[in-house]
Amino acid sequence: MLQPGATIGILGGGQLGRMIALAAARLGLKCHIYCPDPASPAFDVAAASTCAAYEDEAALARFADAVDVVTYEFENVPDGTATFLSRHVAVLPGPKSLAVCQDRLLEKTFLKEIGIATADFTKVDSAADLDAAVAAIGVPAILKTRRFGYDGKGQVMIRDGNDTAAAWRAVAGAPSILEGVVSFDLECSAVVARAGDGTAAVYDIAANHHENHILKRTTVPAPISPATAAEAEEIGRRVAAALGHVGVLAVELFVVRDNGGEQLYANEIAPRVHNSGHWTEDGCLVSQFEQHVRAVAGWPLGGTDRIVDTEMENLIGGDAADWRNLLAEPDARLHLYGKSEVRPGRKMGHVNRIRRRP
Amino acid sequence: MLQPGATIGILGGGQLGRMIALAAARLGLKCHIYCPDPASPAFDVAAASTCAAYEDEAALARFADAVDVVTYEFENVPDGTATFLSRHVAVLPGPKSLAVCQDRLLEKTFLKEIGIATADFTKVDSAADLDAAVAAIGVPAILKTRRFGYDGKGQVMIRDGNDTAAAWRAVAGAPSILEGVVSFDLECSAVVARAGDGTAAVYDIAANHHENHILKRTTVPAPISPATAAEAEEIGRRVAAALGHVGVLAVELFVVRDNGGEQLYANEIAPRVHNSGHWTEDGCLVSQFEQHVRAVAGWPLGGTDRIVDTEMENLIGGDAADWRNLLAEPDARLHLYGKSEVRPGRKMGHVNRIRRRP
Repeated sequence: MLQPGATIGILGGGQLGRMIALAAARLGLKCHIYCPDPASPAFDVAAASTCAAYEDEAALARFADAVDVVTYEFENVPDGTATFLSRHVAVLPGPKSLAVCQDRLLEKTFLKEIGIATADFTKVDSAADLDAAVAAIGVPAILKTRRFGYDGKGQVMIRDGNDTAAAWRAVAGAPSILEGVVSFDLECSAVVARAGDGTAAVYDIAANHHENHILKRTTVPAPISPATAAEAEEIGRRVAAALGHVGVLAVELFVVRDNGGEQLYANEIAPRVHNSGHWTEDGCLVSQFEQHVRAVAGWPLGGTDRIVDTEMENLIGGDAADWRNLLAEPDARLHLYGKSEVRPGRKMGHVNRIRRRP
Repeated sequence: MLQPGATIGILGGGQLGRMIALAAARLGLKCHIYCPDPASPAFDVAAASTCAAYEDEAALARFADAVDVVTYEFENVPDGTATFLSRHVAVLPGPKSLAVCQDRLLEKTFLKEIGIATADFTKVDSAADLDAAVAAIGVPAILKTRRFGYDGKGQVMIRDGNDTAAAWRAVAGAPSILEGVVSFDLECSAVVARAGDGTAAVYDIAANHHENHILKRTTVPAPISPATAAEAEEIGRRVAAALGHVGVLAVELFVVRDNGGEQLYANEIAPRVHNSGHWTEDGCLVSQFEQHVRAVAGWPLGGTDRIVDTEMENLIGGDAADWRNLLAEPDARLHLYGKSEVRPGRKMGHVNRIRRRP
């Protein structure tokens, strides 16, 4: 268990690392950010920072010596980095969370094994595998690389059985899976915090709206039945427990409505704080960032209940240019990430709008 | 008007500077802390820091060049420091706020001139002045040094006309004032934010409870009549406007109940974010720290309305040792300042407890 004044090492210096560091500071903890990008926005709010490659073992060793625990803001931490660090210092969440979430085949297989429904999926390692998979699953289906995909990258939609050769070229022959398309009515997410002693806390289920494959808005509560919400929360808890996860994770879920009922299919797991949990900073007393800090510090989790209904809107690319109007909006709270360079599709900030109860 | 990514310079590296820096970070602004104390807790959350004396003109010049505006977390900024900096960069709040609030005689005179009731007071520059003042004001009365007093320091209670020589020795002959004692029923404070364009926003009036001359608890809303609360808010606005203040300030007010009515007397003005406004971080959407940042950045102020009733408890000296229980308490949010050394009377953190409406 960390004492106040201890140092949390964070791999990754983007907005998630920055918001974890801000939450840690409020609890009297220091942060040390490790990131190869010299323009990392998290550097500006941390007590210490290391700008070095994830493969630089000398820098990693110094980092491990300088911190009391290591966590991360992104799931694609190289295996070697996590393994090297874990010889020197606790790395939380642990290796199973990283291994399962870095690989879509392991992830979907894991979900299936713990009894959580997913889209149909098949391993694809060759053009011939892909033809067989399309024959088995049908079209439309999505070819996805097993590793390093995010925000729609590394994915090809296959709408016709004749498209397979082009699709296989598009993923450059990378180990992949073919997934059936779930024709969903709504995408939700369950954001769960789990402590080392196995206690877990789930935030209210949020509904997510994407534009151009990037999350644009999250609204809470999600417009789903209480039974579906309870099932989504239970899925979150089950995933966190089965991974032995310590920290926050998010499970993205598809909601399919038919015959008056709602079915849930898990899409993917992010073993970290998640964009769909940003609403918690203004809608709850204890945000997902603080919960993550508490969990990796070995501290008790806080409450997750919603104090006010909230809608989160991402500010993507040029959206943040509107910051002055957003600041002046009543019931809105602006969060800017301190990124100097605006690029199309880049997440520059978000705004939480609370909805007061009458 | 600052742009996102600009840098706010903060004089003073204590918990107030730290919380201003955390609020600035959420808005995409950088902070540069200037403080002579190498153990300043604000250093840990700022993009840059200068550890140098307030009289070090070379360091001040480099600091001024590195920032886009300067503000401060304490009112006892040396005159020379503020004057030197203001030749290079805007210093907000401006010189009148500092001059009036650094000197109890100027402060009380200012309040009287703008029609706000205070305790009786008289200038005391000699033992003879003190005898005359005691004869005029009566006992009990309080001898207070004009400058550098806080948390009850630099104050001597005079209960008997014969105590004056000892009292004058106790303040070591420093320029002082004698104040009559207001027999108050409650102490409140008005925390006001004022922007450069003259717009102002006042938080709900808070009730303060002291122990050993140090603020222990703040509860909101204060148990005063709506008319008294409105008058307290108006006093806050009037003070801020008359100072031409840009940023947050707090006016401490005594409430005297008699004949079924409530009378307000202003006690002192803090030209900065204030301990009695710490509740706003969890009770409001936009905290006093964010308002201060918005004001000194030239940005529009946010709303000040209370989302949930809140009680703030200071963690003083050894109180913070109870952090683990405080973390586990439902409806409590813990704030620790990252100070390594515990000393009696030192403010180590605070906890905000929200009260849900039924």
